[in-house]
Amino acid sequence: MNETHDPKVKSWVTSANEPGCDFPIQNLPFGVFRRKNHEGGGIGVAIGDQVFDVGAWVRDQGNSSAEFALLTEPLLNRFLAAGPQVWSAARKALFQLLRDGSVQREMVSRYLDPMSSLEMRMPVTIADYTDFYASVFHATNVGSMFRPDNPLLPNYKWVPIGYHGRASSIVISGTPVKRPSGQRKPPTAETPTYGPCAQLDYELEIGAIIGQGNALGSTIPVSDAAQHIFGLCLSNDWSARDIQAWEYQPLGPFLAKNFSTSISPWIVTLEALEPYRTAAFARPEGDPHPLPYLTDEHDQQSGAFDISLDVYLCTRRMREEKIAAARLSHGNFRDMYWTFAQMVAHHASNGCNLQSGDLLGSGTVSNSAKDSRGCLLELTWRGTEPIELPSGETRKFLEDGDEVVFRGYAEREGHVRIGFGECRGTIVG
Amino acid sequence: MNETHDPKVKSWVTSANEPGCDFPIQNLPFGVFRRKNHEGGGIGVAIGDQVFDVGAWVRDQGNSSAEFALLTEPLLNRFLAAGPQVWSAARKALFQLLRDGSVQREMVSRYLDPMSSLEMRMPVTIADYTDFYASVFHATNVGSMFRPDNPLLPNYKWVPIGYHGRASSIVISGTPVKRPSGQRKPPTAETPTYGPCAQLDYELEIGAIIGQGNALGSTIPVSDAAQHIFGLCLSNDWSARDIQAWEYQPLGPFLAKNFSTSISPWIVTLEALEPYRTAAFARPEGDPHPLPYLTDEHDQQSGAFDISLDVYLCTRRMREEKIAAARLSHGNFRDMYWTFAQMVAHHASNGCNLQSGDLLGSGTVSNSAKDSRGCLLELTWRGTEPIELPSGETRKFLEDGDEVVFRGYAEREGHVRIGFGECRGTIVG
Repeated sequence: MNETHDPKVKSWVTSANEPGCDFPIQNLPFGVFRRKNHEGGGIGVAIGDQVFDVGAWVRDQGNSSAEFALLTEPLLNRFLAAGPQVWSAARKALFQLLRDGSVQREMVSRYLDPMSSLEMRMPVTIADYTDFYASVFHATNVGSMFRPDNPLLPNYKWVPIGYHGRASSIVISGTPVKRPSGQRKPPTAETPTYGPCAQLDYELEIGAIIGQGNALGSTIPVSDAAQHIFGLCLSNDWSARDIQAWEYQPLGPFLAKNFSTSISPWIVTLEALEPYRTAAFARPEGDPHPLPYLTDEHDQQSGAFDISLDVYLCTRRMREEKIAAARLSHGNFRDMYWTFAQMVAHHASNGCNLQSGDLLGSGTVSNSAKDSRGCLLELTWRGTEPIELPSGETRKFLEDGDEVVFRGYAEREGHVRIGFGECRGTIVG
Repeated sequence: MNETHDPKVKSWVTSANEPGCDFPIQNLPFGVFRRKNHEGGGIGVAIGDQVFDVGAWVRDQGNSSAEFALLTEPLLNRFLAAGPQVWSAARKALFQLLRDGSVQREMVSRYLDPMSSLEMRMPVTIADYTDFYASVFHATNVGSMFRPDNPLLPNYKWVPIGYHGRASSIVISGTPVKRPSGQRKPPTAETPTYGPCAQLDYELEIGAIIGQGNALGSTIPVSDAAQHIFGLCLSNDWSARDIQAWEYQPLGPFLAKNFSTSISPWIVTLEALEPYRTAAFARPEGDPHPLPYLTDEHDQQSGAFDISLDVYLCTRRMREEKIAAARLSHGNFRDMYWTFAQMVAHHASNGCNLQSGDLLGSGTVSNSAKDSRGCLLELTWRGTEPIELPSGETRKFLEDGDEVVFRGYAEREGHVRIGFGECRGTIVG
């Protein structure tokens, strides 16, 4: 076993050892922070309720190795470009520094900040953002609303369907999300009008952050594809359903999506997620086998990730009345029709060059169960089955003041639970 | 009249005064070069068959004003972010330096390099690339091939349809274009296969380079939108039609487009193009008026640009037999259904933040005439009407070794003709 996965190891940062903590020593996710008092910031690693200021620690050591020197950068892109061996070496070293019995405990403890004293920032420059559509349950549900005669198109089971999103409007968790305006034309209206979106929705997704890219014109074999992913985060691909329905043909969603996408601040490395790998989705009898460029035995055996995903909603009235956020859904990332390795291999299969820091969204994560659906469009069936909240309010879509919170975590018998933290956003009018 | 448009002014760079020259003193487009002997490079301005090394000139002056200091950067992004007043001041100053009778002639002449001794580079970092679909003739032609029952969708005359493209694979004119592989499923085949694209095409477009952007959550009124555009270039949105037909539903084109987009190296400023503005496309009787957020009287009167556009093809055999490139089409940018100001206003109408250096493609420029169609898909009607070339060869789509060359220029009675130079690309297998 990779020592950094050993469930018996504890950290001298005692909060990391609490049951249910998202950031035990087996996790060590990377992020970028700024101190709320404006005294510096940079690349950090979450441990319990603390953040290890790796950048400052490396600078102060003076004799840093190559892999650690990249952690003094303001953003993670150059570290990501260094590749899996460097990420793994850094992880091992961090693990030794923060584990129980570390001789460097006293010195390292000077570089810890309480997470509550920090503001998290975008961890990478995202050059390009691609959003996939990898849940067959989501695709089928949405398809049956927008194209009742033709819910799942003939290409779906062959092609990991994806499209380009907008990189400039990707924001870090906690950034308020302004309700967009746009053109909508209800089916009953004769002509469209421009005005505030009346069907604002969230989309629960997992984002993959690309580590090393590929040169323009080269491809990435599916057997190597996972090596190109640095880690995963939570992502909320906010969606304006009324704008989407009117604009999306024939070239796909545009203004319905590009007003905002929120990501969680901590990138959980693929190495930390190794113990929670699981078999790829078992295609139902009769579904086609993927083409050879998308097929790898190892990926089929362990290319999915067992990550539990919860969505919570807290309305303004719930906050005022001190009512706890209501859980809207509980799903899992395991059952996606395509693995991230397949999505990466497909993306580069025409020679398109991926770059360090690119974000690949999984598409909305929905499972077969009704309470696992990852957006309001599906949960309320396009507003026809409103959700009842503990405050007595109902929701078809999001109202101003609503806060949406995603939480994700991986757990498995014989392993320590690791978490993603949260991806939050509040709608402002 | 803005003095920089005065057709009577000549340059002391005599090649700039030749009839038919793309770069007279009234043009002064910006680009980024590197010397083929590797002795430096940076931001330059084209004048005749020479390039003025503005960056080196400013550095050597030592007392540069703010607008000129930004021209010492390696790329144009920061200059673009400075806004129209700065661009205009720089243009005026360059005009004075390069005009006949300039007292600085001798000193400036030391900063001229023959264009042939330089290699042009990407002039900006393109953070996000959006491609529109603004020719109603193109949209109707393509629609009638892919959706015979439903060629022009009901949203087309209301929404400036656009979608996000891939920024990482945008390359400068002259970069070879590798034939992509991908999934294709001919209508007669039962299942798709992965292999080299058999229907490789070009798309003739005009690209707009964003100058100043807008903050996330803010909009850009259509009356201000042109102020956010620094200038225009030629763009080739290479397209794999067989991949496109199979993958594009429901989320739009993806791998069919993102393997390469070529742009011409010289950005012709909107100020240089002022004399060639013309009335927006006259919507046929019965077409709807655009919604108010897309309507501005001034834009309707002069929001289009009279730019002639030619496409040439030269096959490998034609090069070997020294046969001149064949002109495939001759069109004009004047007749687009939406102006760039409308596209910019629409793009930001939901609060999406544009950024300095963003590329907005117009979509394929086709006019009503058959010989004006801006891609092979339309010219050969999806391969059913092959083109005959002077070499005796025929083309349905592009073959390996084919070079595609776009040329663009604006001319008007009483004004000097200004050109865009070329956008070139050769297909490699």
